[in-house]
Amino acid sequence: MSINDRSEGAFNEEVKNVTTSRSKWHVPASIVSKRTINPIRETVHKMNAKPNPDKALISLALGDPTHFGNFKIHENCIDAVIKQLQSYKANGYPPAIGCEEARKAVAKKFSTEEAPLTSRDVVIGSGASDALNIAIGALCNEGQNILLPRPGFSLYQTISKSKGIEDRYYNLLPDRNWEIDLDQLVTLIDDKTVCIVINNPSNPCGSNFSRHHLELILQVCETYKLVIISDEIYEDMVFGSTKFYPIASLTKSVPILKISGLAKRYLVPGWRVGWILIYDQNGVLDEIRSALLSLSNLILGSNSLIQYSIPDILFNTPNEFYEDTINKLERNASISASILSKIRGLHVIVPQGAMYMMVGINIKEFKDIKDDLEFTEKLLEEESVMCLPGRCFHYPDYVRIVFTPPPEKLEEAYNRIREFCIRHHI
Amino acid sequence: MSINDRSEGAFNEEVKNVTTSRSKWHVPASIVSKRTINPIRETVHKMNAKPNPDKALISLALGDPTHFGNFKIHENCIDAVIKQLQSYKANGYPPAIGCEEARKAVAKKFSTEEAPLTSRDVVIGSGASDALNIAIGALCNEGQNILLPRPGFSLYQTISKSKGIEDRYYNLLPDRNWEIDLDQLVTLIDDKTVCIVINNPSNPCGSNFSRHHLELILQVCETYKLVIISDEIYEDMVFGSTKFYPIASLTKSVPILKISGLAKRYLVPGWRVGWILIYDQNGVLDEIRSALLSLSNLILGSNSLIQYSIPDILFNTPNEFYEDTINKLERNASISASILSKIRGLHVIVPQGAMYMMVGINIKEFKDIKDDLEFTEKLLEEESVMCLPGRCFHYPDYVRIVFTPPPEKLEEAYNRIREFCIRHHI
Ligand SMILES: Cc1ncc(COP(=O)(O)O)c(C=O)c1O
Ligand SMILES: Cc1ncc(COP(=O)(O)O)c(C=O)c1O
Repeated sequence: MSINDRSEGAFNEEVKNVTTSRSKWHVPASIVSKRTINPIRETVHKMNAKPNPDKALISLALGDPTHFGNFKIHENCIDAVIKQLQSYKANGYPPAIGCEEARKAVAKKFSTEEAPLTSRDVVIGSGASDALNIAIGALCNEGQNILLPRPGFSLYQTISKSKGIEDRYYNLLPDRNWEIDLDQLVTLIDDKTVCIVINNPSNPCGSNFSRHHLELILQVCETYKLVIISDEIYEDMVFGSTKFYPIASLTKSVPILKISGLAKRYLVPGWRVGWILIYDQNGVLDEIRSALLSLSNLILGSNSLIQYSIPDILFNTPNEFYEDTINKLERNASISASILSKIRGLHVIVPQGAMYMMVGINIKEFKDIKDDLEFTEKLLEEESVMCLPGRCFHYPDYVRIVFTPPPEKLEEAYNRIREFCIRHHI
Repeated sequence: MSINDRSEGAFNEEVKNVTTSRSKWHVPASIVSKRTINPIRETVHKMNAKPNPDKALISLALGDPTHFGNFKIHENCIDAVIKQLQSYKANGYPPAIGCEEARKAVAKKFSTEEAPLTSRDVVIGSGASDALNIAIGALCNEGQNILLPRPGFSLYQTISKSKGIEDRYYNLLPDRNWEIDLDQLVTLIDDKTVCIVINNPSNPCGSNFSRHHLELILQVCETYKLVIISDEIYEDMVFGSTKFYPIASLTKSVPILKISGLAKRYLVPGWRVGWILIYDQNGVLDEIRSALLSLSNLILGSNSLIQYSIPDILFNTPNEFYEDTINKLERNASISASILSKIRGLHVIVPQGAMYMMVGINIKEFKDIKDDLEFTEKLLEEESVMCLPGRCFHYPDYVRIVFTPPPEKLEEAYNRIREFCIRHHI
């Protein structure tokens, strides 16, 4: 009798194919999931410290500028999304690579004379994270290798390891405003090196590459035929006389996938809209274009309401909004650098952009702190100030500070850090 | 001299490590991207047919209920999102697996006495697609195999092949309302079989499994220790006296990952919110829970505005909204079945739910049509009616019809199909 025709219960007797391996429930996690590691989560997990109950927690750890309420998206952007909601016309599936309206607007906004774009060159993803996941996935195979910055944003590692791509680290030089150590970079390249990820302005360094340095990077990539994935999610978020250059505007030959999105410039990381811009003046990325398309079919891209709002968001946000954001960040950066640089035991590399800075700990000057992890743990326990140990970014003996909290909170946090350092200094 | 210190141009002379393999740009697509195939896109691409310019196009191909404007989300849901927008408090990063508010609301909404849930059992993803991608990725390794329905939704194949998981197909039986052929299913299972995907109610079949059939499926899974991924994105969208049973409510032992989301029930596929519900009464999915968490870190989940609106969407949408949606679908299903079943050369399996039906083509009765692909191509060319050939769902000699267009459009489309069939019938 067919199984389909049985009444229940009458089944187990004559089971075919049931090998012993199938006789008990045993459901292991996949290999891929096991190698998909988020160093920030792992490290924070390991930290066995609790905030001091007598002091209010101040977090300098969150890469989310909206957290304290002092950085807010412009109301025009809110209105743009409300308009889409009320139209009832932006609820359907956009194409997997993003709707034409959004792709066109992004292409227009980021085109420069030297590096023009059309909507064909834009792939919208669910955040810059998804854009990175797709870009790395389109280029690299398991067993090949990818060059990543040290210190650097940990998602590059998470994505690469998840795919079985070997992560190799090029050094950034703190004494040269976190320029790439190009001599060391060159030693990492072999036949299996596919591409390099650069992140400018940088999380966690808050650095911004000079035009000259970008040109040297391009020259190395041209020589070794390295495709560049350029994560420019903090583009234009630079301070004072510092100037940001999109790397794609400085080359006619090196193929570049630029990653960016709404998260940081528009202060909406939760909206999950990012993009890949394809710069391929010599037509060497044809296969990669189809690969990006194929991979974007897996999860079908990002929220339609936001996608259809992108033209408004990019073109109807007043300039004062950006200026105001950058002025506030710059003020916070300057407060941070000036207070922290006066604390004995710390050394500060003054940030030029983004919302982060790396602060070095002169470990030998501390009597009872052995490394960055212990520094952050004790700081949290004693002063209720949370920051991430440098090891989250492959850079021990530093801590990363996010300087987006309001100035008075920052000052309070830094005063506590000063007390803490005085207490533990030799 | 260090490369960092050079002026430009003075570099190329003394290049180290440049093997011949790196002397020319050659940027192939990754193996993974090449095997990430969307059968629908491939098939539609291959169709070299254009609509008849004298007739307005009617598409019965789009699995997007919002396309024609006759199915609309309830205004309370719109208001819920506007509320979040205006609060300026839902723009930050939620946790990668979703914010607690959303996970709690989903757990509450879908808990039953037999299968209770807490927020711990919910992972929010960017659409059911992302939820499927994460669930399959957490369970299966390259080289293992997964059991998929035939006919079935093509994303299961896209995801599985992308990950190098062998896709094996169990048959659904058109003569038994698309029940699973359990005898044939059992023959597919071997040591490398990890799990089975079932899709109930079904895209493309519009079928709904009886309680008894679900119990038989569970018995097979219990016997062979097969984890179930149950895609129930069309849950409760069933017609007349048909009753939908969540499969998790019928077992105390088989571990189940249920996939669902807002897309279809709330008529907002573009909003990209789906979820995984973890049913694990015997604690055999502990590793899988962490795996889901790890994998959700790759793209950081779905839009925050919608996530924070989920409690309102799930609990403040009036019941009449669902009833109205289902009544309209049911009316369309019945129009479709009654007209199409009278057309010579076609055979209809009356849908019991969802928004789809499979219509068989008695190919031998047609004088100049050799298969489902030619049927859909000629239908488009002559009558400007677009539907997808069954091969998109691994089921040739059928076509899939989406019956969400307004009744008058459906009738017009079916009249044209009737004319078409008369013209081509022997
Ligand atoms: C350098 C960098 N790239 C990418 C991302 C991820 O951006 P998204 O939130 O759009 O996924 C971040 C977020 O912190 C980042 O710092
Ligand atoms: C059976 C089935 N599962 C999953 C999905 C994908 O849903 P989402 O749009 O939420 O990714 C669809 C969409 O058509 C579907 O039909």
